[in-house]
Amino acid sequence: MTIKPLQDRVVVKMTEAEETTKSGIILSGSAKEKPEVAEVVEVGPGTSDVKMEVKKGDKVLISKYSGTNVKLEGEEFIIVKMEDILAIVK
Amino acid sequence: MTIKPLQDRVVVKMTEAEETTKSGIILSGSAKEKPEVAEVVEVGPGTSDVKMEVKKGDKVLISKYSGTNVKLEGEEFIIVKMEDILAIVK
Amino acid sequence: MTIKPLQDRVVVKMTEAEETTKSGIILSGSAKEKPEVAEVVEVGPGTSDVKMEVKKGDKVLISKYSGTNVKLEGEEFIIVKMEDILAIVK
Amino acid sequence: MTIKPLQDRVVVKMTEAEETTKSGIILSGSAKEKPEVAEVVEVGPGTSDVKMEVKKGDKVLISKYSGTNVKLEGEEFIIVKMEDILAIVK
Amino acid sequence: MTIKPLQDRVVVKMTEAEETTKSGIILSGSAKEKPEVAEVVEVGPGTSDVKMEVKKGDKVLISKYSGTNVKLEGEEFIIVKMEDILAIVK
Amino acid sequence: MTIKPLQDRVVVKMTEAEETTKSGIILSGSAKEKPEVAEVVEVGPGTSDVKMEVKKGDKVLISKYSGTNVKLEGEEFIIVKMEDILAIVK
Amino acid sequence: MTIKPLQDRVVVKMTEAEETTKSGIILSGSAKEKPEVAEVVEVGPGTSDVKMEVKKGDKVLISKYSGTNVKLEGEEFIIVKMEDILAIVK
Repeated sequence: MTIKPLQDRVVVKMTEAEETTKSGIILSGSAKEKPEVAEVVEVGPGTSDVKMEVKKGDKVLISKYSGTNVKLEGEEFIIVKMEDILAIVK
Repeated sequence: MTIKPLQDRVVVKMTEAEETTKSGIILSGSAKEKPEVAEVVEVGPGTSDVKMEVKKGDKVLISKYSGTNVKLEGEEFIIVKMEDILAIVK
Repeated sequence: MTIKPLQDRVVVKMTEAEETTKSGIILSGSAKEKPEVAEVVEVGPGTSDVKMEVKKGDKVLISKYSGTNVKLEGEEFIIVKMEDILAIVK
Repeated sequence: MTIKPLQDRVVVKMTEAEETTKSGIILSGSAKEKPEVAEVVEVGPGTSDVKMEVKKGDKVLISKYSGTNVKLEGEEFIIVKMEDILAIVK
Repeated sequence: MTIKPLQDRVVVKMTEAEETTKSGIILSGSAKEKPEVAEVVEVGPGTSDVKMEVKKGDKVLISKYSGTNVKLEGEEFIIVKMEDILAIVK
Repeated sequence: MTIKPLQDRVVVKMTEAEETTKSGIILSGSAKEKPEVAEVVEVGPGTSDVKMEVKKGDKVLISKYSGTNVKLEGEEFIIVKMEDILAIVK
Repeated sequence: MTIKPLQDRVVVKMTEAEETTKSGIILSGSAKEKPEVAEVVEVGPGTSDVKMEVKKGDKVLISKYSGTNVKLEGEEFIIVKMEDILAIVK
């Protein structure tokens, strides 16, 4: 069973320990926009206004309170809009 | 008696047990946008701005508090806008 | 005496018993958008942005708190915008 | 002394007894938008976005709390925007 | 010393006794938009969206709480936007 | 050290005594938009939507609470948007 | 490990002592928009609406409460939108 996001939506999966790894990425933000590191699972087709700039497998920073949580066959995903993805981490 | 949705609206029917099936989809979201699984019954023609990306029979994730409930000949439907459909589940 | 709606407005007349008929349509909605069944009486010309998708005689579902009530020669009408008409019922 | 409305504005004059005439028009609306019957006195030139769809002498339904009251040489007028005129009554 | 308004702004000067002259203009409006009679002193160049429809010397009705008061060499002016001018009085 | 404003921003420097000079400009405005006299120091390139209508050295009226204060090498500047400049004073 | 900002986002790094250096830049702003001096680290590709006007290495003034803080391998960055960058300091 798979999730195919529509329009400018992206399905991501949180990666672990993103706030504890010492030499990794530790995130702190304003109350308004706290980012989290996630891995892109599925990418929507985009719209006439929004071009999709991420691809499956990308590690991304997303705004913490954006999107909708979905649990599918035991795994948790978040469906976010393209504009809620701040950056790709390489 | 049938419902023909206008513009970018979609008529959906909730599918059952979407929160209890063990290996199925269990949904939990923010207070702002709780998704639900539904089956598409009728699709509007779209508008010049909005292209319809679902078809009759698709299983979809919709935002929980979006749309309008309608009971027609004993069956319950929800009329949502295309933008309230987050993803297709296959 | 007739009402000729302007722009993207539509004059509708409520049909009866839309919440009591057993095998008919029984409506229940969120507090935000409660639909009602109505019959289209007059249709405005539309605008450059809005194409009119209903015609005189159509049975339609409208949002309950939308529009303006008008009593003309003893009969009650509601003037709604095209976007407040959710679907055509056949 | 005359008033020449600018852009998409229309000068109207309220007609009398619009809520008491038995076989005439009796208006009741939501708290948000109560219509009134008025006669068009002057019509602005319109804008690139708004085409004027009424002419001098038209009887119109306007939203009750829209517009600005003006008293000119003893007579009262209301200056409304084109979008506040709901319909022409014939 | 002169004021040259920018974009779609207009410099006006209030005319006197606009609420007391018996056979003249007496203004009463809603709390939201109370008009006043003023004389146009300077007109900005307009923008690609807004065409200036008044000229120096025009008597105009403006919304009472719109604009910014400016005192220049003892004289008081108001700088308003074109959209705050409701009509020209002739 | 210089400040080069981006997009439709303008760097201005307040001129003195703008509220006390007797035959000069005395400003009083609504609570919402109190203007001040300033001298233009640097002008941004503008955007596709906004054309810059002031140049270095212009005396301008700006909205009092608009913009951001910056102190650079002991001198105070304000960075405002083009739309916050009401008029040029000559 | 690097951060590649998307759309019209820019990754910046705060420079030090920006409020204490005597002959440098001392910033004070309104509660709404307090600027800070920062150095540009990475620049996104821009969008069809927004052209990127800064480049790697530029010293810029940004709005204090804009953007999202990110700590990457011990270093702190802020991801801001192009529109939150007020000016380039040279």
